[in-house]
This record gives sequence, C-alpha cells and structure tokens, in this order.
Amino acid sequence: MPSETPQPAFVLVRPQMGENIGAAARAMWNFGLDRMRVVAPRDGWPNQKAVAMASGAGRLLDEAQIRTDVAEAVGDCHFVFATTARARGLTKPVYSPEGAMAEAAERIAQGQKVAVMFGPERAGLENDDVAKANAIINVPVNPEFASLNLAQCVLLTAYEWRRAQGNIEARRVDMAKADWAEQIEIEKLSDHYEARLGEAGFFFPEHKAEGMKINLRNMWSRMPLTRADVQMLHGVLRQMVRWKERGD
Amino acid sequence: MPSETPQPAFVLVRPQMGENIGAAARAMWNFGLDRMRVVAPRDGWPNQKAVAMASGAGRLLDEAQIRTDVAEAVGDCHFVFATTARARGLTKPVYSPEGAMAEAAERIAQGQKVAVMFGPERAGLENDDVAKANAIINVPVNPEFASLNLAQCVLLTAYEWRRAQGNIEARRVDMAKADWAEQIEIEKLSDHYEARLGEAGFFFPEHKAEGMKINLRNMWSRMPLTRADVQMLHGVLRQMVRWKERGD
Repeated sequence: MPSETPQPAFVLVRPQMGENIGAAARAMWNFGLDRMRVVAPRDGWPNQKAVAMASGAGRLLDEAQIRTDVAEAVGDCHFVFATTARARGLTKPVYSPEGAMAEAAERIAQGQKVAVMFGPERAGLENDDVAKANAIINVPVNPEFASLNLAQCVLLTAYEWRRAQGNIEARRVDMAKADWAEQIEIEKLSDHYEARLGEAGFFFPEHKAEGMKINLRNMWSRMPLTRADVQMLHGVLRQMVRWKERGD
Repeated sequence: MPSETPQPAFVLVRPQMGENIGAAARAMWNFGLDRMRVVAPRDGWPNQKAVAMASGAGRLLDEAQIRTDVAEAVGDCHFVFATTARARGLTKPVYSPEGAMAEAAERIAQGQKVAVMFGPERAGLENDDVAKANAIINVPVNPEFASLNLAQCVLLTAYEWRRAQGNIEARRVDMAKADWAEQIEIEKLSDHYEARLGEAGFFFPEHKAEGMKINLRNMWSRMPLTRADVQMLHGVLRQMVRWKERGD
C-alpha cells in the first residue's frame, strides 16, 4: 500500500529502458515518495528489467498506475509540473526544483493533487505534453554540459520534495480555499474550445493550425482556473453556438 | 585545463567500478565542478570503463589527481568534508548537503581549499577516513530505504554547490520574457466579451445579469494574461461571431 503521507505523484512519460524506470523508483523511495504513474512504457508492463533494478523499491512498481496517455495520467490532478532541460517557447511559469517543491507542498497542504511529469530518456517531454502542465521545472545545470538522466532528474526533484517538508510550518498558507478545477476539467474545456473553434474555422491557415491549438491549450492549462471559471467558460462558448444556431 | 572558478575538490576514495567513476565525473560537470581527485581506484588508472561512461566529461578524468592514500589526497586542503550514509560514533559537526556547500562557499571565498570525500560503493568511508575530515555531510534519505549510489551522492552535493553559488533561484523564476498585457487591454477584452455575450443572450435571467458580468470581468482580471493571450481571446470571440454571421 502506498504510504498515507500526502505527496506529489511522479509521472514517467513514455519511458524507454526498464532499468531507468527501476532507478527512478529507487530515487523516489530514497526520499520517501511512493506514488509512481507510468504513461505508455515503451517495453510494456510489467517490466522485468525495471523490477530487477528497483530492488528494495519494487513496491512502487507493483503499485504504479499505468496509463496510455498523459491526459489520463494527470486527469485527477489540480496542478501539474513538467520537467524540461531546455527553455521552451511556451509561456509558463518556470520553477527551480526547490521553488517547485515548495509550491507543491503548499498546494498539497491545501488538499490539492499535484503531479510532476518526467519525459522519455532521449527526447524529453514533447511540447504537446508540456502544454498540459501548469508550470515548468527547470534544473539549472551547467549550460556547457546538461546531461542529467531520468533517474537523476527524479532524484533531485524528490530530494527537494523532502527538503520542502522541513519548511512547511514556516510557510504562510494565505490563499483562500478556492475550489480549483482538476486537470481533467481543463482538458475537457480545451477539447470543447478546440472542437467548436475548429468548426468555426478558427485554426487557419492550415500550416499554423497545430501551433494555434497548442497555444490555446497552453493558455488554459496555465491559468489558475476554479471550477466556476471553467463552467463559465463552457457557458460562454455554448452561448455563442446557440446564438449562431438561432441565426437571428 | 580545470576551470578557473574557485570550487571544492571532490575526492573519490577507493572507488571500485570504473562506470561509477565516470558517472561521478558527469554528475560533477553537470553542475560546473571539474576538480576530481581519486584515491587508490580498485582497478588502476587510467580506467577505460570510467572513460566510456564519462563521455562529455572525460576531461575531468584526464585532469584528475590520482593519489595512493587519503592523507595525501587532502593534504593541501584547509577544510575537508566526509559524506556518510549513517550517523557515526565520531564527534564531528554534521551538515546537510546544503549547509555543507554554504560553508564550503564561505571558506573558498576566504581563499581556503575545501575537499569533499566520497567513499567506495558498498561500504562507504571507513572510520579512519572520516577521522581525517573536519565535518560530516549526511544526506537526509528515507530511513527505511537509504540506497544512494556514489554518483547520486556526488550529484546531490554538486547540485547544492551550484545552489550555494546563487545561480539557482531559491524561489519562483518569473515567466521568461513574458509580454504581460496591461490593465487597459484586459479592460478592453472584458468589454468585448461583455458586449458580444450580451448580444448573444448570455446574461440571463435579467436579475442575475449584473452578477454574471462581474464574475466574467473578475475572471479575466485575475488571470495572468500575456498580450498574445489577449489577442487570442479576442480572436476566439471574433471567429465565433463571424461563424454566426456566415450562418452556414
């Protein structure tokens, strides 16, 4: 059974080598984290190489949630971080590992669910994955030599989580208890806008359509939206459609 | 040539596997450290497995100081840390990695030479090695599962060195180069939505209209919107109106 301690979920997105999944499990458990989610592992699941490498932290693999896509894997979360090595064109808040885990600790103390996504070994997360995150974690490595592997990136983030635990009492929790939307609600909102705007001919010209869609999704996921905001934004769109259909 | 930047030397004491020496070199160089010393490597020197693993950080191995014992390896240093997994009976100051690297940074700024010793993979440093250190670094791992390997221990310490330099922002790094919308632009966006949604019959029933308008304005003004976001949101609405007007 996963520990009772409230904590972020670590989401390995399309990991390739089983050894790295096992090493990531060890890195997590070294700092007391035991909620792993795995999206579309290249070599299927269960993975014997992962089990062999995880020795001592194998429970994390047994209990891992396996999902087929990122949207599903983070659907129940209120706030999602994406770890990236490079700066991206995407406009999102960028955190250090320390800042991110302090933010995660605050949100979790308020009852929110938080996830941290880690990309595949070589390429890292795709823009489409990052667009689903609320914020980015950037490990400020040596610009001449940035070669952290998956388990090392997990290790540093888990280490900062543990460090943040010592700071929780010192931190003011002054945000009102807002009823924040979950990730799945933001995803549905994005889908709704994408579908209707598609019908309306918004994504034009064709060769820019993909980029426009990512920008739009990125904007929604970056906004601190409450459930009420999401309902209102659905309502706005629905009303425009009704208006069109009435044709008056 | 080692970089000019003043920094601690990392001393690998009797390391066993060449792969781990190479991985330690990579971990160091990820955070800009390039002064390695190696005491009595089990498999001799140079070590081809170390070279293969270090790829990109191989220069650290070429330039490493190889010594036969610990006393010789740290003889020129003013202050020496020993990393240990367990608390020892020895009476020495115990530092967290963060505290240790802050101490190291202060001493180095005063012109002192500082070294950090890392023990062999299985057993760690012997009491006799630790006795040569001025202080201990203890990584606060999960007491139920303390299994950091050599390169991971080097990685966390190097990361804390880099943090001590102030190169790593302690808190949120604000969104890079975001071109934030000014208040007047948010106001115009609110006006645009209010006007069009009014025409579309969104603010209904009548007695709730005022409250709905306030909620909508409040949402826009609460969002961290860039100029590009504002343009996109205008575009979304304009497109819906065009779609309606086409009446197709």
